[in-house]
Amino acid sequence: MATLKDIGLAAAINLLSAFAFLVGFAILRLQPVNDRVYFPKWYRKGVRSSPTRSGAFGNKFVNLDCRTYLRFLNWMPDALKMPESELIEHAGLDSVVYIRIYLFGLKVLVPLAVLAFMVLVPVNWTGQTLERIKNLTFSDIDKLSISNVPAGSKRLYAHIAMFYLFTLWTCYVLHEEYKKIAAMRLRFLASENRRPDQFTVLVRNIPPDPDESVSEHVEHFFCVNHPDQYLTHQVVYNANKLAEFVAKKKSLQNWLTYYKNKYERKSTKPTTKTGFWGLWGTQVDAIDYYTAEIEKLTEEENKERARVINDPNCIIPAAFVSFKSRWGAAVCAQTQLSSNPTIWLTEWAPEPCDIYWDNLSIPYVDLTIRRLLMGVAFFFLTFFFMIPIAFVQSLANIEGIQKVLPFLKPLIDKDSVKSIIQGFLPGIALKIFLSVLPMILMAMSKIEGFASLSSLERRSAGKFYLFILVNMFIGNIITGTALQQLKAFLNQPPTEIPKIIGVSIPMRATFFITYIMVDGWAGIAAEILRLVPLVIYHLKNTFLVKTDQDRDEAMNPGYLQFATSEPRIQFYFLLGFVYAVVTPILLPFIIVFFSFSYMVFRHQVINVYNQMYESGAAFWPDVHRRFIMNVVVSQLLMMGLLSTKNAEISTPLLIPLPILTIWFHVYCKGRFQSAFVTFPLQDAMVKDTLERATEPNLNMRSYIKDAYVHPVFKAGELERPLVVDEEENHPLVQTKRTSHMNSKHESYVNSDTDS
Amino acid sequence: MATLKDIGLAAAINLLSAFAFLVGFAILRLQPVNDRVYFPKWYRKGVRSSPTRSGAFGNKFVNLDCRTYLRFLNWMPDALKMPESELIEHAGLDSVVYIRIYLFGLKVLVPLAVLAFMVLVPVNWTGQTLERIKNLTFSDIDKLSISNVPAGSKRLYAHIAMFYLFTLWTCYVLHEEYKKIAAMRLRFLASENRRPDQFTVLVRNIPPDPDESVSEHVEHFFCVNHPDQYLTHQVVYNANKLAEFVAKKKSLQNWLTYYKNKYERKSTKPTTKTGFWGLWGTQVDAIDYYTAEIEKLTEEENKERARVINDPNCIIPAAFVSFKSRWGAAVCAQTQLSSNPTIWLTEWAPEPCDIYWDNLSIPYVDLTIRRLLMGVAFFFLTFFFMIPIAFVQSLANIEGIQKVLPFLKPLIDKDSVKSIIQGFLPGIALKIFLSVLPMILMAMSKIEGFASLSSLERRSAGKFYLFILVNMFIGNIITGTALQQLKAFLNQPPTEIPKIIGVSIPMRATFFITYIMVDGWAGIAAEILRLVPLVIYHLKNTFLVKTDQDRDEAMNPGYLQFATSEPRIQFYFLLGFVYAVVTPILLPFIIVFFSFSYMVFRHQVINVYNQMYESGAAFWPDVHRRFIMNVVVSQLLMMGLLSTKNAEISTPLLIPLPILTIWFHVYCKGRFQSAFVTFPLQDAMVKDTLERATEPNLNMRSYIKDAYVHPVFKAGELERPLVVDEEENHPLVQTKRTSHMNSKHESYVNSDTDS
Repeated sequence: MATLKDIGLAAAINLLSAFAFLVGFAILRLQPVNDRVYFPKWYRKGVRSSPTRSGAFGNKFVNLDCRTYLRFLNWMPDALKMPESELIEHAGLDSVVYIRIYLFGLKVLVPLAVLAFMVLVPVNWTGQTLERIKNLTFSDIDKLSISNVPAGSKRLYAHIAMFYLFTLWTCYVLHEEYKKIAAMRLRFLASENRRPDQFTVLVRNIPPDPDESVSEHVEHFFCVNHPDQYLTHQVVYNANKLAEFVAKKKSLQNWLTYYKNKYERKSTKPTTKTGFWGLWGTQVDAIDYYTAEIEKLTEEENKERARVINDPNCIIPAAFVSFKSRWGAAVCAQTQLSSNPTIWLTEWAPEPCDIYWDNLSIPYVDLTIRRLLMGVAFFFLTFFFMIPIAFVQSLANIEGIQKVLPFLKPLIDKDSVKSIIQGFLPGIALKIFLSVLPMILMAMSKIEGFASLSSLERRSAGKFYLFILVNMFIGNIITGTALQQLKAFLNQPPTEIPKIIGVSIPMRATFFITYIMVDGWAGIAAEILRLVPLVIYHLKNTFLVKTDQDRDEAMNPGYLQFATSEPRIQFYFLLGFVYAVVTPILLPFIIVFFSFSYMVFRHQVINVYNQMYESGAAFWPDVHRRFIMNVVVSQLLMMGLLSTKNAEISTPLLIPLPILTIWFHVYCKGRFQSAFVTFPLQDAMVKDTLERATEPNLNMRSYIKDAYVHPVFKAGELERPLVVDEEENHPLVQTKRTSHMNSKHESYVNSDTDS
Repeated sequence: MATLKDIGLAAAINLLSAFAFLVGFAILRLQPVNDRVYFPKWYRKGVRSSPTRSGAFGNKFVNLDCRTYLRFLNWMPDALKMPESELIEHAGLDSVVYIRIYLFGLKVLVPLAVLAFMVLVPVNWTGQTLERIKNLTFSDIDKLSISNVPAGSKRLYAHIAMFYLFTLWTCYVLHEEYKKIAAMRLRFLASENRRPDQFTVLVRNIPPDPDESVSEHVEHFFCVNHPDQYLTHQVVYNANKLAEFVAKKKSLQNWLTYYKNKYERKSTKPTTKTGFWGLWGTQVDAIDYYTAEIEKLTEEENKERARVINDPNCIIPAAFVSFKSRWGAAVCAQTQLSSNPTIWLTEWAPEPCDIYWDNLSIPYVDLTIRRLLMGVAFFFLTFFFMIPIAFVQSLANIEGIQKVLPFLKPLIDKDSVKSIIQGFLPGIALKIFLSVLPMILMAMSKIEGFASLSSLERRSAGKFYLFILVNMFIGNIITGTALQQLKAFLNQPPTEIPKIIGVSIPMRATFFITYIMVDGWAGIAAEILRLVPLVIYHLKNTFLVKTDQDRDEAMNPGYLQFATSEPRIQFYFLLGFVYAVVTPILLPFIIVFFSFSYMVFRHQVINVYNQMYESGAAFWPDVHRRFIMNVVVSQLLMMGLLSTKNAEISTPLLIPLPILTIWFHVYCKGRFQSAFVTFPLQDAMVKDTLERATEPNLNMRSYIKDAYVHPVFKAGELERPLVVDEEENHPLVQTKRTSHMNSKHESYVNSDTDS
C-alpha cells in the first residue's frame, strides 16, 4: 500500500528522470552534428541546410555558444507557437488531427479533474469507512478513493451524478471534436491542390475475359458504362519480385559505398567474404566483388522488368481508372458497377504513395476467408498468447541454459549473475513479444488484404487497442492471464463480471499511477530524445555518406506510429475516465502525460516526422469509436462497482448511460462519418467548375498518366534518366541511389514487404 | 407424457378437421355467389366476369352441377400447375419468392428428416437409458429422442456428425437459394417494363433556403450537381389532413348508398340519428342528412385541397427527383450529394403505391431519436408484456365483474357459467394482445420513420420474429415469462444459459407437435377458407352494392401478410432444425405443414391475393438473415444440450459451427445483398441503351410527370374528371366512388393511417 508520500516521491523521481531526458535532448539538439536527426523535416522541405558547412571547425560539430544552452527549454513554447492552419500546411492534416487527440484528452480530463477534486475528493475523504475498520492498513490514496465511502451510503449519489456529468461532458466534447475534424477534413480536401487520387478510382477484381487483355477490357467497360467521364486507366503489374531486386541492389550499393569510403580513407584495398553477411566463404576484393554483383543484379533486374511489362500474366486484375472530373470519379467510387458485387469493385484510389501494392490482386472469396482466419487468429493471440511465452520462459531457465550452453556454467553459477538471470529472463520473453506485437498485428492486417497503408495502420490500431484493453487494462485489474479471465467469465453470470472487475478497480490505483509515470512519462521523454535514430544516423554518416544527397538519405525522420501510439492514448484515457469517479488522484498524472505528449508530438511533427501518406484524418471515426468504447466499458465497470456497494438503486440509475452513449455513437456515425468515407458530389462539382474556369486548357491525360505506375517502374524509367543526365560524367554514378522521392517510395515498399 | 399413439390420434383428429375445412372450402368456392371471394385476382385482372349474370336463377347463386363436386380437390394440382415464370408475371416476384420460402423449408427439412430417421432414430431407440431407470414413466417419443442416449456415450458422436451435416446442407441450400433469388430479382428488374420508379430518386431532408421555395431549390441544386441527367421533380405536399377528409367522405358515401338501397327496397324513408354512430341525437331523414353532410365535406375538402396546393408551408422538405436515364437515377441514388450527410439524402424512390406518405418529412435527428425510443420500447414490449396483461387478468376475475356489473350476479353465480368465465377470461386478454401485436409492431415501425410500405413490413417482420423467438420458442421451452427468463439469465453464467434451455428441449417435443398441428395445420386450412372476407363480402354485397363497379369494390382480395406470416415460417423452421437432432419424430409434422402451406399459398397467390406493392423480393436478405439466426440459435442450444450429456469433447467440437455459420452469412451478404439494395450501373446502362434504340422519341417528361403525385390529388384532379365525364348525367353520380385504382390507393393510405 503506497501512501500519498510514496507516490509523491515516485513522481518526483520520474519527473527528474524525464527532466534529465529533456536536458539531454536540449544539449544534443543544439549540436550542429545532430542537426539532421532533430530537424530532418526542415531538410526534407529544403528550408534548412547543413550548419556543418559554415563556421569554424569546432562549431561544425559542437555548439560552443553558451547563450543557446541557457534557452534550452525554448523548444516548448516554440512547439506551441505555430498556428494550426500553418501546421496543416507544414505537416498535413493527419499529424495535426493526431496531435488533437492529446488535446481532446486534456479537454475532457481537466474539467473532470477539477470537478472530481471539488466534489468527490471531499465526499470520499470524509467517508470514514476505512478508519472504522480495525486492523486495516490503508493509505491516504485509499482514503481519497470510493473505498472510503460506506456501502449503501447516500454519498454514492454524488458519484452517480458526477458520472452522469462526466459522460455528458465527454459526449459533448466528442461531438464538438467530430464536428470540428469533419469540417477540417472537408476544408482540407477542398483546399487541396489538384492531386491524381482525386480523379482516380481503384478498380479491383476485374473479371477475366477470354478475348481481351485486362487493359482492353477495362477500357471497353468504362467507355460503355461511364461514357462521358472516363479518361484513362493504368493497369497494375505484379512487380513484387522486381521490387525485391531493387531492394537487394540498394543494399549491395550501400556495401559498395561503405567499402569505397573505407578504401579512400585507409588506402588498402578492403576485402570481404562471399558467404552469408560476409562472415565466411572465400576472401575477395570487396569493391570488385560488389561492383560485379551489382552488375549481375542490374542485368537480372532489367530482364525481370522486361518480363513484367511484356508478360500478360504479370498484369493483375486491378486497375487505376481515371476520370475527366472529380465528379466522375466520385460517382464511380460510390456506385456499384456490375450486378455481381464481387467483380468490378470500386473504391477511391489511395494516394500513390499510400498504396500497398502486394494486396491489389486478392479475389473476393479469398478476402472473406482471410478475414475469418485472422479474426480467429486474433482471438487466440489475445487470449492465449501467454501459453507460448510461458513455454519459452520454462525453457529459458538457468538449467536450460546450462544444458544448451555448458561453457557458460562457471559464469552462471555466480550468485549475482544467477539472480539477474532469474529476475530478468522470464520478463525478457514477454518484453520481446510485446515489442514485436505491433509487427505481428500489422502482418495480420496485411493478410486481411487491405490495399492502402493508411487502412492497414488503422486496422492494426484497432487490433492493438483490443489487445491492450483485454491484457493490460482488465488483465492488470484482476491479475491473471487473459485465458484465466476468459474461463472465469464463461462460468460467471454476465452481471457478475462487471462486479468482479469493478471491485478490484480502487485497489489498483497505485499500480496504474506508477505505470503512467514509468511507461507514459518516460516513454514520451524517450520519444523526443530519438536515441535510436541518432545512433543510426551517425553510423550511416560515418560509413556510407559521400555526398549531401547521401546525407539526406541517411536521415530517418520516422513518422507518427499511429498503429501503436493511438491505442496507448486510448488506454490512458480509459484509465482517466474510470478513475475520475473511483480515485480522482490518478487524474493529474494522466493530465501531465497528455499535456507533455501534446507538446512533444507537436514539436516532433513540426521538426522531425515525415509522414508516408496523407489520409486526411481518415482515422478519426476509428478514434471516436474507441473513445465511445472506453466510455461504455467504464460505465459497465462502474455499474459493477456500485452494485457491490449495496447501492441497490445504482444499477437502474446507471442503465440508461450505456444505452444513451451507444445511441450517441450511432447518431454521430450517421451525422459525420460519411465525411470520412465518401466524397460528396456537390463539393466535387464546385472544385471541377472552379478548375474548368481557371485552367480551361489543362491536359488531364498527361497529368494523370504516370501517377499510378508502380514505384519500381517510376524509379527505373521515368525519373532516373533525368538524374543520370545531370551526373552522367560523374564517377559516382554507379553508387548513386535514386532520387529522394523514389527512394522514399522504395523504402516504404520494402519496409512493408519485410515486416 | 404423450405416447406415440396419443400423438397419432391427435394427428388424425387434426388432419380430419383440416380436411373438413378443405371440404368446406371446396363446396363454398364452387358456389357462383362466392366467386368474387375465392377468385378476386382474376376479376381484378379483368379475365373473369361474374357467373351470376348468366344461367338460370338457381345456378346464379348455388352450384347445382354435381360433377364439379366430385373433383373438389382439383385446386391442389391446379395450384401447382402454373410454371414459376408465368406466376411471376401473374402475381409479381414478391409473391413467388414468398412461396419459395416454404419450398426452401421443404428442401432443407426433407433430407434432414430422411437422414435423421435413417441414422439418429435407430441410435436413439437402442440407447436404453430410459428403460434402465426404474420408476420412470416414459413414452415411445422419448425413446426416439436424444434423452434415451446415455450420458457420455459414444453414440453422441453420431448426433454431432449429423448436426454438422445438417448445418452444411442448410448453408448449401441457403447459398443456392440466395443465388437463385438474386438472379431472379435481377432478371425481373431487367425485364420489367419502363416504370417511373426506375428513373426517380426520393430526396429527403432538403435544407430550407431563405430565398427560394423548396421546388426552386431542388431544381437549382440538381441542375448544378447532375447537369446532364436531371429531368424534373415533384415536390411532396403534406396532404395528411386532406386524405382524412377523403376517407371520411368515402365512409359517408357508403352510408348514403346503404340508406338509398334500403329506401329502394322498403319504400319508407329511412331515418337516422345525428349523434355518434347513429345511436343517439335528433332523428332526421337519413338520405337528406347524408347528402348534406357529403356536400359540406366536399366543400371543406376543396378548401383544404386549395390550401395545400397554394400554401408553401404545406410543401414538405422532400421531393421525387426524376432523371433522363436509369443510369442517372442509379448514380444519384447511390452517391452522397452534400458534405453534410444529414441533408439531401437520396434513396431509390419506392413504387408510387409503395410510398408511406406520412413519413417523408421527418428530419434526421428525429429519426435517430425515434429509433432509439422504439428500440427501448420493443425491448420492454418483449420482456415485460406480461405485466399489463397480468394486471388486466387480475381485474377481469369474477369478483371484479360482480362489483362493476352487479346485475349479472345471478347469472355468474351459476356454476357452469362461473367455470367458463374462470377458464376463459385469463386467456382472452392474452389472445387479444397477441392478435393486436402485429398492429402494435407496425405502428412502432411507422414511428421509426420508414418511407415505404415494403420497408415497414420488413421491419415489423423483424420485430415479430424476435418476439416469437423470445416468447414462443424459448418461453415455451423453459416455461416462464420472458421477464423471469431475463432475470434468470442475468444471474447465470453465459455458458449456463444454453444448458438450461438445452436440457428442456427434448421434454417439450410433444408440446410443440401439438402446437404445430393446432396452430399450423388448422391455421393454413382457415387461411384458404377465407371466412372473414366471405362474410364481409356478403354483407357489403347486400347493403352497399349497386353497380358492378361497386361489387368490384366490395371484393377484398387481401394480400400476403409478410409481417406476420414470415416470422411464423421462421419459427417452424427453427423448431424443425432444433428437433432434427433431438427428437426427429417432430420433423414429419413440420414437413406436412410446409407442403400444405406451399400448396395453399400458391393457390391463394394465383387466385386471391392482390399485392399492394412490388418490391422485387427485397425482403430476401432479411429472410436469409433470420434463417442464419435460427441455425446459430440451434447450434448454441445444441452445445448446451450436449454439454449436459457429459460429452466433454462436444463443446470444442461444436464451437466452429456458429463461427463458420456467421462467416457464411457475412460472405453471402457481401456476395449477394447488393443485388437487393443497389441498382448496378452496368444493368442501367444496358436498359437505357436498349430503350434509346427502340424508342428514340419517347417523351420522358410527360411520362414521369404525375407519377409521384399524392394519391388524393390524383383522385381529385387527374382521374376523377374522366369518370365524371362518362357518367355525368347519371343520377348515381353522387354516390359514385372513385375509380378502382384510386380507391385502391386511398384504402392503403387509410388503412395505414388507421393502424
